[in-house]
Amino acid sequence: MPSAKTAILLIDCPDRKGLVAAIINFLVERYDVNILNADQHQDVELGLFFMRVEFATDAPNFDEPAFRAAFEPIAREFRMNWRIEFADAPQNVALFVSQYLHCLADLLLRHQAGEFRANLALVVSNHEDARPLAEFHGIPFHYLPVTPATKPEVEAAQLALLAENKIDLIILARYMQVLSPSFVDAYPRRIINVHHSFLPAFTGARPYHAAFARGVKLIGATSHYVTEVLDEGPIIEQDVARISQNDQLPSLIQKGRDLERMVLSRAVQWHLDHRVLTYANKTVIFA
Amino acid sequence: MPSAKTAILLIDCPDRKGLVAAIINFLVERYDVNILNADQHQDVELGLFFMRVEFATDAPNFDEPAFRAAFEPIAREFRMNWRIEFADAPQNVALFVSQYLHCLADLLLRHQAGEFRANLALVVSNHEDARPLAEFHGIPFHYLPVTPATKPEVEAAQLALLAENKIDLIILARYMQVLSPSFVDAYPRRIINVHHSFLPAFTGARPYHAAFARGVKLIGATSHYVTEVLDEGPIIEQDVARISQNDQLPSLIQKGRDLERMVLSRAVQWHLDHRVLTYANKTVIFA
Amino acid sequence: MPSAKTAILLIDCPDRKGLVAAIINFLVERYDVNILNADQHQDVELGLFFMRVEFATDAPNFDEPAFRAAFEPIAREFRMNWRIEFADAPQNVALFVSQYLHCLADLLLRHQAGEFRANLALVVSNHEDARPLAEFHGIPFHYLPVTPATKPEVEAAQLALLAENKIDLIILARYMQVLSPSFVDAYPRRIINVHHSFLPAFTGARPYHAAFARGVKLIGATSHYVTEVLDEGPIIEQDVARISQNDQLPSLIQKGRDLERMVLSRAVQWHLDHRVLTYANKTVIFA
Amino acid sequence: MPSAKTAILLIDCPDRKGLVAAIINFLVERYDVNILNADQHQDVELGLFFMRVEFATDAPNFDEPAFRAAFEPIAREFRMNWRIEFADAPQNVALFVSQYLHCLADLLLRHQAGEFRANLALVVSNHEDARPLAEFHGIPFHYLPVTPATKPEVEAAQLALLAENKIDLIILARYMQVLSPSFVDAYPRRIINVHHSFLPAFTGARPYHAAFARGVKLIGATSHYVTEVLDEGPIIEQDVARISQNDQLPSLIQKGRDLERMVLSRAVQWHLDHRVLTYANKTVIFA
Repeated sequence: MPSAKTAILLIDCPDRKGLVAAIINFLVERYDVNILNADQHQDVELGLFFMRVEFATDAPNFDEPAFRAAFEPIAREFRMNWRIEFADAPQNVALFVSQYLHCLADLLLRHQAGEFRANLALVVSNHEDARPLAEFHGIPFHYLPVTPATKPEVEAAQLALLAENKIDLIILARYMQVLSPSFVDAYPRRIINVHHSFLPAFTGARPYHAAFARGVKLIGATSHYVTEVLDEGPIIEQDVARISQNDQLPSLIQKGRDLERMVLSRAVQWHLDHRVLTYANKTVIFA
Repeated sequence: MPSAKTAILLIDCPDRKGLVAAIINFLVERYDVNILNADQHQDVELGLFFMRVEFATDAPNFDEPAFRAAFEPIAREFRMNWRIEFADAPQNVALFVSQYLHCLADLLLRHQAGEFRANLALVVSNHEDARPLAEFHGIPFHYLPVTPATKPEVEAAQLALLAENKIDLIILARYMQVLSPSFVDAYPRRIINVHHSFLPAFTGARPYHAAFARGVKLIGATSHYVTEVLDEGPIIEQDVARISQNDQLPSLIQKGRDLERMVLSRAVQWHLDHRVLTYANKTVIFA
Repeated sequence: MPSAKTAILLIDCPDRKGLVAAIINFLVERYDVNILNADQHQDVELGLFFMRVEFATDAPNFDEPAFRAAFEPIAREFRMNWRIEFADAPQNVALFVSQYLHCLADLLLRHQAGEFRANLALVVSNHEDARPLAEFHGIPFHYLPVTPATKPEVEAAQLALLAENKIDLIILARYMQVLSPSFVDAYPRRIINVHHSFLPAFTGARPYHAAFARGVKLIGATSHYVTEVLDEGPIIEQDVARISQNDQLPSLIQKGRDLERMVLSRAVQWHLDHRVLTYANKTVIFA
Repeated sequence: MPSAKTAILLIDCPDRKGLVAAIINFLVERYDVNILNADQHQDVELGLFFMRVEFATDAPNFDEPAFRAAFEPIAREFRMNWRIEFADAPQNVALFVSQYLHCLADLLLRHQAGEFRANLALVVSNHEDARPLAEFHGIPFHYLPVTPATKPEVEAAQLALLAENKIDLIILARYMQVLSPSFVDAYPRRIINVHHSFLPAFTGARPYHAAFARGVKLIGATSHYVTEVLDEGPIIEQDVARISQNDQLPSLIQKGRDLERMVLSRAVQWHLDHRVLTYANKTVIFA
C-alpha cells in the first residue's frame, strides 16, 4: 500500500471517562484508519492522561488540514494539547558540538547505520575540531567561534542558519556554550542536551570532578530538553555505570563518554520517532 | 464508586485491521465502561496481535456470563484467544519449596508488605525446613516427603490439596523435584518456576557450578512457566549480576540468591496482575 | 591448622617508594605469616596509598600486643593510619529500625543464610512493629519510643544498651530518627545508614517523592557511614533501578525497597569483612 | 624520571606459602623497583595463584635478559607460568572486519580519543565496505576476499601481512569468517573475537534470531579469545541489555550493536594493558 501515510497523534489532557473511545472512534469512523499502535498513560496524582496513536490511512491523499479541523472539536471538548506528526517526513537536524567529538561521532555512525529517520543537515561548532568528521560524513560544517562579546551576533547567525535549513531539532552533542533564553525560546522542546551527570546531582560545570570528589559509586549521564534554567529541563533518558576506587578521574571520564553516547542517542531516536511527550517538566516516553 | 468492578481483558489473535476499534467500541458502547488502560503489542514476524484492556464498569452488578456471551461473536470473527479476569478476586496461591528458603522468605515478606494481590493458601514441601517460617506467617504447612517410589502418590496428594484449596497459581520457590507431565498438564501456564541460570544457558542441575566452570562474567536467573520439557517453558523474567574472579562458588551462589528472588517475585506479581500473555513459547509482559 | 589465626591489616598513608616491600617483609620475616590476600590502591591525585593484607599465622598464639609494638615503628616511618582486625572475632551488631521492616527482615534472613560473620545482638526501635520479627529470629528487642523532649534520655539509654552489649556496628535499617552529633561521635565509621536516593541527589526527607516530581528515569539508594552532617557521610554502596512513567509513587517506592535492601546488605557485609577504608569522606572497598 | 621503565609481571602457579614474599623481595632487593600496583587472586578450588605486579625501575637501562635470567630460578621453584611486559611498548594491532562496521568504527574512535596504548597497524577485510573508514583514520586497508576454495591461500597472505607488521594482537571486529586451527595456533591468546550473544547461550550463527525465537528478556554479547573450538574460548567480558516485546528483531539487533562495542572495547583495553591472564579456559581480569 504505497499510498498509505503513517501518522502519529500525540495527546495530553485531563483524564476523563470516554476519552479513549472518543479518540479511537474518531479515527476509525471518520478516517477509516488502521491503528498500528495505541499507547496510553495516566498520571494518577495530577489526573492527567497521555496518548500516542500510530495509524496508517488508506486514503491516497491524507488531508492534514481537514483532519485538524475535524479533530479540533473533540480536542476542545476534552481540553487536549495535541499534535499530529508524520513518520515519512524526515526531520532536519542540526548538531552543535565543541571539542569533545565522541557524541557527534556516535550520532553520525548511528545515522549511517540507519538508526535515525532524519536528515542531518549541518554541524555547528565554536571550534574547528569536528570539521574532518563532518566532512567525512558529507555534512556541511559551520565554524562559528564564540566570545562573550560576540555571543549575541553569533546566536543570530546560528538562528539564521537554522531557519534557512528548516531545522526541526537541535542536538547539543557536548556543545560547551550556554544558549541564551531567547535562543531556547525559539526552539521549545526541540533542543536536546546531554549533561555528564545523573541529574539532579552535579549540575553545572565539571560534574565528573564533583562526582569523583563526592566518592559516588556510580556515575551517570542525562539527556534532557533545554529550558531557560540550566540543567533543569525535562529529563528524557539517564543511565549509570559502576565505578570503583580503581577509576581515577581519567578512567571515570572515559566510562562517562560511553554513558553520554547512550543516553543522547536514545533521546534523539525517541524524539525523532515522536515518542516523547512533556508535561510538568517531565517526559512520558512511549517506547 | 464502590460498586465498580475492575476487569482485565486479555486477547491474542491474528493482526487485522479494525481490531482495536472493534474491541474498544464493544466495551464502550455495549458496556459503558471506563477504560483505565489499554495496552497492545504486535509480533510483526508472526502477524499476531496482543491486547490487554483494564476497565471499570459503573454497573453495580457486572454480569460476567452476559459479557462473555456478548463478546463471543467478536472473538470468533477475529479468531481470538481471550480471557477476562477480575482485579478484586484474589487468587489462591500454593508455594512449593525444598530446603533453600530465600525465595519463600522473600515472597512472604513481599506479601506482608502488600505487593501481591493474592491469598497465600499453603506451603508444600518435601522437607521440614520451611515449617517455622510458614507458621510465623500463619500459612498452613504441608510436609510431603518424596522418594522415586512414592512420587506418584505424593503428586496425587498434592493435587488433592491444590484442588481442595482452589489453587490458581503454584510457585516453585526452589522446589527441587521435577513435576510429572500429568501434574504440569493440570495447571497449564499456572506453575511458575525459578531456574538459577540465564536460560537457555546452563539448563539442568547445578547451573552455578557450570557457570563457574565456564568462566562467565555475569550470572543470571530466570523465572518461567513450567512446561513438560524441563527449563524450556516460556520465560517471564530474567536478570543478571556481574561477578569477577573474586567470586568463588560460595559468593557466586550468594549473589545468585538475590537474582532468584528478584526474577521470581517480578514474575509472580505480573502473573497475579494478569499482565502476562503467552504465545509461541514466549511471553508478552504488559508491565 | 586449627591454631592459625586469620588477621586483616588495613593501612592508609602517603604513597612512597618501598611501602609494599616494607609491609610484606615485616609480615613474612618477623611473623612468618602466610599472605592470603594483598590488595592495594592509590589515590593518584591526593598521593595516598591504601592496603589491605589478609594473612594467617602458624603461631599457635598470635600475640596481638607484640605485633602492634613491632609494627609501630614502620607505621610511624611511613605515617600510616592502620588497624588490625581478626576474622574469627564475630562483631556485635545492633539493628535500629522504625516501621518499615523490609531492610531488617532482609538482614535477618541473610544472617540466617550465613552471609554475615556477626552476632546480631539486639534490635532497637521507636515502634513495636519489629518485635515479632526480632523474636522469631531470637534476637532481643528493645522498644524505646522517642519524642523531641525525650530524645536525650532515650539516646542515653540506647548508648547504655550498646555499651552493655559491646556493640561494634550499628545498622540503621530505615531508622527514621536523626542521631545527635554526640551519639554519632561515639561510633565513628561504625554506624551504617541506608538513604533511599542516589546521593547526593535528593538528600533529606521524602526522596522518592522528590525523585518522582523531578521526573528522573532511574531511582537509587545509598548506604553510607553516618557523620554529623545528614546524608553527607562516606558512601559505601549505591545502586539504581530503571523506572518509567508506569511507575507512579507506590510502585516506585516498591522498587526502591529492593534497592535499599541490596545496598545496605552489601555495605554491612563489606564492613563486617573489614573491606572498607575511609578517607577524605570517601570509601575504598577492597571487594 | 624519564629513564624509568614501567614493567608488568604476570604470574600463575600453584598456590603456596611464601609466594608473595618471594616475588616482592626479588623485585625490591634485586632490582630496587618501585611497586606501583600488586594485585593477586587465588582459585581456591584449583589451588592456583595469580599475580600481576606493575613496577617502575630507577635503572636507566633496565636489562630485560638479565631480569629474566635472575627470575628464572624463582619461577622454577614455584612452578610459575610467567611473562614480563612493558607499558611503553605499544603493541601492533590488526583489525579484521567484514561488512558490519560498528565495532571497527568504535575502536577507531576510542583509539583517536587515546583509550588504547596501541599502534593500529592495519585493517583486513573480505569486503570493501570498511575501506573509507580505515582510510579516514589513516590506517592501511587490505582487501582480501575469501571463498571456501581460496581460504588457505588467503590465510597464508593474512599471516604474511601479520608477520610483516609484527602484529601482537588480532581483533575480530565482526569478521564473519571462521579461522582455521593453524591460523589460531599462530596467535594463541592473541586473537579477540566478539560474539553477539551471552555465551554459552546461542553459539553459532544468527544468535540474535535464536534469542528472539527463545523469548529471552535480556540479550548479550561476549568478547573472548579465539581457540580452535568456535565460541568456546576463554571469556574476557560480557554484558547484557534488557529487551521487551516491543523489540522486534531490528531493534534487538540495534541494541546488540551497542553491547558488542562495549564488550569488545573493554576486552581490547584490558588485553593491551596486560590485565588478562588465562587458565583453565577462563580469564582473570586484573582491572
